[in-house]
Amino acid sequence: MAVGPSSVEFAAVPGVRLSSVACGIKKNGKHDLVLMAFSEGSIAAGVFTQSLFAAAPVQVGRRHLETAESTRYFLINSGNANAGVGADGLADAMSCCDALAKLAGVPTDSVLPFSTGVIGERLPVAKITGALDAAMADLSEDNWLDAAQGIMTTDTRPKIASRQVVIGGKTVTLTGIAKGAGMIQPNMATMLCYMATDARCDKAMLQTLLADAVEHSFNRITVDSDTSTNDSCLLVATGASGVDVSAGDAREAFSKALSALALELAQGIIRDGEGATKFVEVRVGNGPTSEVCLAIAYAIANSPLMKTAIYASDANWGRIVMAIGKAPVNIDVNKLDVYLGDVQLMAAGQKHPGYTEDAGAAVMADEEITITVDLNAGAAAETVWTSDLSHEYVRINAEYRT
Amino acid sequence: MAVGPSSVEFAAVPGVRLSSVACGIKKNGKHDLVLMAFSEGSIAAGVFTQSLFAAAPVQVGRRHLETAESTRYFLINSGNANAGVGADGLADAMSCCDALAKLAGVPTDSVLPFSTGVIGERLPVAKITGALDAAMADLSEDNWLDAAQGIMTTDTRPKIASRQVVIGGKTVTLTGIAKGAGMIQPNMATMLCYMATDARCDKAMLQTLLADAVEHSFNRITVDSDTSTNDSCLLVATGASGVDVSAGDAREAFSKALSALALELAQGIIRDGEGATKFVEVRVGNGPTSEVCLAIAYAIANSPLMKTAIYASDANWGRIVMAIGKAPVNIDVNKLDVYLGDVQLMAAGQKHPGYTEDAGAAVMADEEITITVDLNAGAAAETVWTSDLSHEYVRINAEYRT
Repeated sequence: MAVGPSSVEFAAVPGVRLSSVACGIKKNGKHDLVLMAFSEGSIAAGVFTQSLFAAAPVQVGRRHLETAESTRYFLINSGNANAGVGADGLADAMSCCDALAKLAGVPTDSVLPFSTGVIGERLPVAKITGALDAAMADLSEDNWLDAAQGIMTTDTRPKIASRQVVIGGKTVTLTGIAKGAGMIQPNMATMLCYMATDARCDKAMLQTLLADAVEHSFNRITVDSDTSTNDSCLLVATGASGVDVSAGDAREAFSKALSALALELAQGIIRDGEGATKFVEVRVGNGPTSEVCLAIAYAIANSPLMKTAIYASDANWGRIVMAIGKAPVNIDVNKLDVYLGDVQLMAAGQKHPGYTEDAGAAVMADEEITITVDLNAGAAAETVWTSDLSHEYVRINAEYRT
Repeated sequence: MAVGPSSVEFAAVPGVRLSSVACGIKKNGKHDLVLMAFSEGSIAAGVFTQSLFAAAPVQVGRRHLETAESTRYFLINSGNANAGVGADGLADAMSCCDALAKLAGVPTDSVLPFSTGVIGERLPVAKITGALDAAMADLSEDNWLDAAQGIMTTDTRPKIASRQVVIGGKTVTLTGIAKGAGMIQPNMATMLCYMATDARCDKAMLQTLLADAVEHSFNRITVDSDTSTNDSCLLVATGASGVDVSAGDAREAFSKALSALALELAQGIIRDGEGATKFVEVRVGNGPTSEVCLAIAYAIANSPLMKTAIYASDANWGRIVMAIGKAPVNIDVNKLDVYLGDVQLMAAGQKHPGYTEDAGAAVMADEEITITVDLNAGAAAETVWTSDLSHEYVRINAEYRT
């Protein structure tokens, strides 16, 4: 199941080559090792999970991002998260980086490792290092879609998107891939997302631009309120276009394209959320602060009762009231207006006199639903995106390891 | 579905009479109106939902509890929550109280109203007031089980329990009933719980004793992280035993019995949690503070991925790691020990060398599961109780209004 259309079109990014191979971690023979190679001088920015149990590759990746002058390779395996295995995990991640660095003739800290899959099992290092020759041989600028497929776990379809923007008469390309379907309420980062551009950018500014884009895309989605140990979102700038986007109008134009790209990929994760049959946008507006708006939006988006009502296409607006009511904030509920799509459910804290079940049911029948809460108490606004809670979600997660 | 045994035995409480009738709110003709009557001079204590959208009867009940010299009646309807209907809801609740007070010849504030059921519909006042004669006529000391059945909504079985304790040579009885199966993460109160005793007690002390008992019972359970607009937990003391429990050893003995009663009723709610196939105790010990222990316990107990793994009897301990990792606290994960039943999964933050899948699976196969997290970082400890997330939970809540 997945909600809404999905495109597999993309634009290659000058300076970026990719490959996807099967190294034997996944028992079914599917691709489970992706290599991304960046031209000399490429720089990277990243945001990572805030989990207390941040996985070994996340810890290594953070360090390499800090020390490397140039970032040259991402080595990404699926099927094993290399998390919850203590110091062994760090050693295993470093062994993979070392092997690739030696093969490619680059410094070890120019390689960033990533892992996704089952938590608590040792990483099969020999399988990964044994496949590096094949992965290097297959590198091509055209392999973005193969890479998007190679990083999938419970995803039902690849998430890939591109943006192109003309800056100073030259075309700058941004392309990204993402994976993730469950364990999704990223905290400062997403499951796995790799974006690259041929723009040139100051490294500190690249980090700022990425953090801004993530804050209103990957940090605004939730499938099940659960946060992964391996969440990572990276942005690489190869500089191949010769266009500098570190400041001024160029930065504005680039930032806008980057935010749009991140949002499309983040929403792609929700559309492919585990068991998703609905795509839900929760908008909370006119609040006193962003924090209040977000608390209410997440209270709605993460409520199991709200999510099952959405799954059932049931305009059970009492559950919206319940969900708002449990938000840990202090607001005057007598000022609240609530809308389901264009239909007003609640005016000044109680049922709108013109509201009818039929009108509500018509909105709920759609695959894409917007819930709008107007607090009438300020100027702040926030939007989050989520999916519903279906039988399929329970089935997928009950049977995950069987 | 419900987990574990359930008793329907109880001891009547001198000074308390009950009745249960069908007044026509529920379409299937089931009992939907319960009346509890307390002898002259009875006093009551109560804790209520912290929802921003506290239902009208909760608002009226809080006020009446404050102003009344004696509490004489609880009027409880199921099928309609009288919540989310603004000022009309307050007027409707007061109309019911007024009608009963007039019929019984008592002050209006000696009547407390309670409602549970669908949110957002006007309360059918005429149906309730039209059934008051019958409800008064049926009052009997022996009707506790009928009352427990009359307040059920999605519950599959009544929750009733008693304790008797001898104080100063005299027997003091405590009996309580509760309802609730979903929308359960009470915040300072439970769904609906009514306890009564024939002890005599100072009113302020009765409130303190109730609050203490609730804090470690109803405030430590969660089915789905959702908090109801109508949560209420009441304790009435009729004084009929002549035993004063306001101070000293008598208070200690009474408090202990009250806490045991509250815990049995609270656990009864979890055992009958919507779609429950497992009863799960989550213990977090040796933490720096109670708050840290609770945050980690609830992160585990409310994780949809953890709950689906428990449903599947899957010893997927990676999900425990994930859930602990997302708790909003700052702890050293390298000190963590984790146990599933008596089986140690994790030692010092990584997989215990002696752990085997078979040993974990044997524990998970039970209906009753204990997860213990030892933080090795202090002396605080907390325990919460929860159920699993099953297909049946989704079915019940997707079909609730159909």
